[in-house]
Order: sequence, then C-alpha cells, then structure tokens
Amino acid sequence: MTSAIRPLVISNVRLADDPSGQPVSVSVAGGRIEAIGPNLAPPPGALVEDGGGALLLPGFVEGHTHLDKTHWGRDWYVNEVGPNLTDRIANEREFRKASGHDAGVQSLALSHAFLAAGTTRLRTHVDIDTDAGLRYLEGVLGTRDTLADVLDMQIVAFPQSGLLIRPGTEKLLGDALAAGADVLGALDPALIDGDPAGSLNATFALAERYGKPIDIHLHEPGEVGAFTFKLLLDRVEAMGMQGRVVVSHAFCLGALPEPTALLERIARLRVALLTSAPPSRPVPPLKRCRELGITIFGGNDGIRDTWTPFGMPDMLERAMLIGMRYDMRRDDDLALAFDCVSAAGAQGCGFADYGLHAGARADLVLVDAETLAHAVVARPVRKLVVSNGRVVARGGVLAGAA
Amino acid sequence: MTSAIRPLVISNVRLADDPSGQPVSVSVAGGRIEAIGPNLAPPPGALVEDGGGALLLPGFVEGHTHLDKTHWGRDWYVNEVGPNLTDRIANEREFRKASGHDAGVQSLALSHAFLAAGTTRLRTHVDIDTDAGLRYLEGVLGTRDTLADVLDMQIVAFPQSGLLIRPGTEKLLGDALAAGADVLGALDPALIDGDPAGSLNATFALAERYGKPIDIHLHEPGEVGAFTFKLLLDRVEAMGMQGRVVVSHAFCLGALPEPTALLERIARLRVALLTSAPPSRPVPPLKRCRELGITIFGGNDGIRDTWTPFGMPDMLERAMLIGMRYDMRRDDDLALAFDCVSAAGAQGCGFADYGLHAGARADLVLVDAETLAHAVVARPVRKLVVSNGRVVARGGVLAGAA
Ligand SMILES: [Zn+2]
Ligand SMILES: [Zn+2]
Repeated sequence: MTSAIRPLVISNVRLADDPSGQPVSVSVAGGRIEAIGPNLAPPPGALVEDGGGALLLPGFVEGHTHLDKTHWGRDWYVNEVGPNLTDRIANEREFRKASGHDAGVQSLALSHAFLAAGTTRLRTHVDIDTDAGLRYLEGVLGTRDTLADVLDMQIVAFPQSGLLIRPGTEKLLGDALAAGADVLGALDPALIDGDPAGSLNATFALAERYGKPIDIHLHEPGEVGAFTFKLLLDRVEAMGMQGRVVVSHAFCLGALPEPTALLERIARLRVALLTSAPPSRPVPPLKRCRELGITIFGGNDGIRDTWTPFGMPDMLERAMLIGMRYDMRRDDDLALAFDCVSAAGAQGCGFADYGLHAGARADLVLVDAETLAHAVVARPVRKLVVSNGRVVARGGVLAGAA
Repeated sequence: MTSAIRPLVISNVRLADDPSGQPVSVSVAGGRIEAIGPNLAPPPGALVEDGGGALLLPGFVEGHTHLDKTHWGRDWYVNEVGPNLTDRIANEREFRKASGHDAGVQSLALSHAFLAAGTTRLRTHVDIDTDAGLRYLEGVLGTRDTLADVLDMQIVAFPQSGLLIRPGTEKLLGDALAAGADVLGALDPALIDGDPAGSLNATFALAERYGKPIDIHLHEPGEVGAFTFKLLLDRVEAMGMQGRVVVSHAFCLGALPEPTALLERIARLRVALLTSAPPSRPVPPLKRCRELGITIFGGNDGIRDTWTPFGMPDMLERAMLIGMRYDMRRDDDLALAFDCVSAAGAQGCGFADYGLHAGARADLVLVDAETLAHAVVARPVRKLVVSNGRVVARGGVLAGAA
C-alpha cells in the first residue's frame, strides 16, 4: 500500500559503534535518513518517537529465503519425508499439488513476520518448474507489490526441480525474468542436472540474454562441488559477470583440505557467498573469506516448509546461529555475525543506499539491548521498526504502514 | 521458600502423543500427578486452571549448565578473550576475582529464568578451585535451598582449573561432596591434567570414598579423547560404577572413523552421554547411541558467561538446536530432540519420578503449540509452569511460588 510519509524524528537512541552510549536522534524525511546526531530539532509536523535509550540498528537483510514454500501461519505440517534431496524435491511437489498451498498468501504472511522482526530487505528464491509454471512467482510478485513501500524484495527465479533434466524449465525461467524476477537461480549443475558444464552454460546464456545476475544453490560437497565451482568461475570470467554472481551454501568450501587458491579466485572475480550456517554441514570459512575480501552474507534458507521445520523470520536469530556455527564468541565476532545479516547482505545482494548514514534509505530497528553482541544473543522484541521512512512495527507487532 | 500446596486441576490441555487432540485434565495433589484424563472433577478447595487447549509437556530437564558462572541479569560482559581453553580458564579466574561476581546472586537469577521457561530439574556444575575454595558452591547451595520446593537441582563439584595440576583441589572436591554436592566432576584427564590414568584414578577413588556418581567434562578430541574414554570405561568396570557415570560433550565420539566397538562398551557399562550439540564441534552420533541403548541427553553448558555469550535458559531452544545440529527435520526426529531435554535428561541425571503419569512429580508446562515439533521450533512463551505441584510461572513470568 502507499501511505503519505510524514517526516519522522526518533530521539534518544544509542549507536552500536559508539561505546560512550551518548544518546542521539535520527531524522527521516522522504523515506531517507536526513541526519543522525545529538539534539536534532524535529521539523514542524514531524512524527516524534522517543527511543527510550534503545539501541539503533539498521534494518536487517535476509539474503536467502523461500517465501513461496513456507507454511508460516498455516496448520503445522507433519514432516515424514525421506532423507535424500530428491525425496524432498518430489515430496514438496506432491504436497503443493495436493494441499492448496497458495504462494501469494504464504509469502505475504512470512513477509509480514519478517517486517515485524526488523527485516526490510529480502532476497527470495521462487520455484519455477514445469508443473507449476509461473504460479508461485505470480503469488510472490503480488506480495512484493502489496508491500512495495515497506519491503525491498528481490526475486530469484529458481529451478528447484532441475534445469536440463526437466525440459521446458529453461523457457519458463526466461518467462519469469521477463515477468519481474530480478535474478536467475540455478541448482547443483552436476548432482541434479548431471551435466555441470551444460547446465552452467544454459544458466549463463540465459542470464546474459535477460541481463540479470545469478544466484546459484550449490550443495555439491567436497571435490565435486569444487569442480563445479571452478567451471562456474570460468564462465564468470569469460562472460564478464564479475560482481554479479552469488553462490549460495557452497558447502564444498568448508570441506577442501586447501581452499586458498579457489578462495583467491572467488575474491578476484567478486563472486559473493551466502551461508545459512547450517550446524550439520561444512560451511565456507567465514573469517578467511573476509580476509580475502570475499563478500559473505547470511540467510535462513527455507523457513517452516516441507524441507525443514526450522528457521525464523528473525535475522538476529540467524546472526546468533552464524556466531554459534563459527564458534565466534567475542563481541567483535558477534559484530561480524551481525554484519552478515545487515551490511554484507546488502552488499552481496546489491541493495542500494544501505546503512545508518545521511542519505541512506530509512530502515531502522530499535531494540532494548546494551550492545550489539547483546542484541544478537538475546534477540529482544523489536521495539520499533521503520522501513523506507514508515513505522511498520512496534513491540514486535505490525503497525499501520505494513 | 515453602508454600502451602493446594490441590490443583488443570483442565482442557492436549497430550503430545495423542493425535486426536482430545482435551484432558491433570489433577495434582501433594506435589504429585494424581491423574490425567478427560473430565476429572476438581476436589473441594482445588485451584482450577483452564489450560485453554494448550499442549501439556512435562517439566524440562537441563542436563548440564554452570549456574555459578553466568552473568545473567548483570551488565553485558564484553568478551575479548583469546581462543584457547587455557586462555578461557585463566580469563575467567581473573574476571571473577576482579569483578565481584557473586555465584549466589547469579545462580538464583538464572534459576529463576529457567523456572519461568519451564525447567524444573537441573544439573549444574560448580567450580571448585584453590583460588575460590568452596565459595561458588556455597552460593549455589544457597540458591538450591531458596528454591528447594520448586527446582530439583543436582550440583556437580567441578575442578574447572584442573585436578592434579592444582594441588589442593582434590581435598576441596572432597569437602564439596561433604558439603552437599551430589556428583563428582572432572575435566580432560589427558589434555588438562596431563596424566589421564592418574587423574582418572584420583577421580574414581574420590567418588568411591564419598559414594557419589561422576560427571566428567571430556573435550579431548579424536583419538586422544577415545584413549581417555577407554581408560575411563576400564575404571567404571573395575569399580562397579555402571549406571553412575556421565561423560559430558564426548566430542571424540563424533570424530572416530569407527566408533561402534567403543559405543557398544559405553552401552554395556551404562555410561550416559551429555551433549550441548555445539554446531562447531564433532558430536556423539545421537541416533546410533540411542539404537545401542545409550542414554544421551542435552544441556546448554554455560549460559552468557566469560566463556560464551550464547545459551538461553530455555530447553525448547536447546531441543531445537539439538535438532538442527543432527539435521533432524521430521516430527519424530524433533520428538527425539525433545526427549533429550526431558525424559532422557531425567534418566541420565537420575531425577526420580519424572514424566506425565500418575505418581510422578507434578512438573508441568503448558504452551500454545499445535504439536510437540511445533513447540520445539516455535518455542512459544510458557503459558503456565507447575513445579512440584506449585504454579511457578504464567506467561513466561515468575508467579508467587518461585
Ligand atoms: Zn535455498
Ligand atoms: Zn560444562
């Protein structure tokens, strides 16, 4: 919905990077941060919010989820699926056919929950397959439209059931990009499509034709994953896709005895990495990646769907899980974990004008926490959430503008 | 505190193992469950609580924490410690000397939080060392006494700074057991004490002298840990300690190429295992252990102390983390994760009269959740907590009896 934007001043908040704890105010107009500093005088007609000494954080970034799959807000889904990737793909296709699962309704429910917990930018993969065609995409596009003023959403056209192995999918992906998807997705070119070079060729050709970036799910483990990753990097280099490709999961990077050469090439080609920091899988070496200049950021992956009962639309919780997965216990480590669901997420996905500075989009979260590390581990209720200059939630509950 | 116990009937609750969802009542008298069934008539004078259709769970069991270390409720502790075990041990000793940290105050604060979130039985390790003597133990004994009616607490006398390497500790551990500690603790006989056989001999001799069970922290990795574990099992067998020893963490069992023979011996000697399911360390194979008949249960380990910022006094969250660590996504898997913080915890620690049946101690938790799996992943606020027949919390907030 569109709502008139009144100027807004939030007073009496603290900045995480100012250990003095000096209270400051934030002034917002036209959906942007105008200024952050002590004693800002509210302009006439401004809405004034007393921050009550809360910690001020930038709006959170969900770097990888699947809004179209979730059962959020529906009856509990009893999971009895088998253990293999192919079991899970088939189970989901069957469930969706049989259950009347509506991607529009579900994506809106989960988006609302994300907003209430302070996420204002979000990248979602959306299944495109030959059973459903663009039906899930249409639902999610509806949600994006509904929330256009308050949730900055990127949509990845994702071939969940495979690309080459399901003829017709390639054309549908093109249709999805033409219909409004922002990013081309892909999935395990070797282990799902069975043809890593061919699958990657198709993906890169499609991305070039539509002028879109790529975000690929790469679950392939160890040496197989590293082989696929190298083929991908060859194509990034050959086709000038530097800075336009995200590799999601990249478990292989956590399982190689000597990943340095591969990591250096990833850095050189400005390929970004997304991790959900799964406790049961190898994960890319976060600090080593950062040292090499690789953008690595965080996301839930699916939330409460046929794949997994886990996940919460709460990026502070995801930051905590990232901290735990990497055994990062110091306060500066937890700041790094938070960076994965904030600035690095914006960088990796390409969300513009991000952060707590004048001129940035006014996406603000207030929490009652002493420090940033405290906010990450305690995950307090979001006292106030502002997105694009609008108050969207108070006390964890959606307010008018959302 | 002691409070008069009125009989209590909780009506209109659902049982997790009854898929029909038929509402039942629970009647409680003298701190015990009298009956669970449909349409129980409250006796005269009984307190009647309407469960409102909530799910009824047994009180949770925290199988391993460190109440004496936590900063819960204090100012945020900024963690800048080095990465090694010895750094962390030294850092904590220094912090405690310098900060005025009071184990009595802190253990009470965290115990209250555990109760409010539905934990009614708890095993805590308490540091015994030559700097502090029994001071932390005295604090925790005070908390146990204060909460005697509502929190069933076991105390482990734990040589955090080492046993043989800090002469005088052995005598202090004996004093601790004489003063009220229930269990003898121990720590990494090879990598901390540097003398696995000697350290274990001292521990087992002390346990025998005081007639106490043992709960040992075994962080030692891989083959070293397996070596120590075998020495421990030799002593369990030689000294008739079957069913009286817990090995906490046991990371080594997650890193051996072929652990079956060791696991079978662990099962035979009825040694129980405790895991916090850390995402960054190897963990004992949960399902394989269960198949072999090994009791394996869950705990937080430390909560918000100088060691770690992580951990919450919420055993539903710990069950979720166990589920995530072991990639257990099905509903029956999540029931197993919950078992680790409920019945298996009671079994492993030896808490008597546990469960939802007539005659059991009346430790009850109500949550608004559809199913047990839903409760584990959503971790809803505890609607009502009853411990030892007393209402101790409502809506996540402590009530009168605690
Ligand atoms: Zn995904
Ligand atoms: Zn411990």
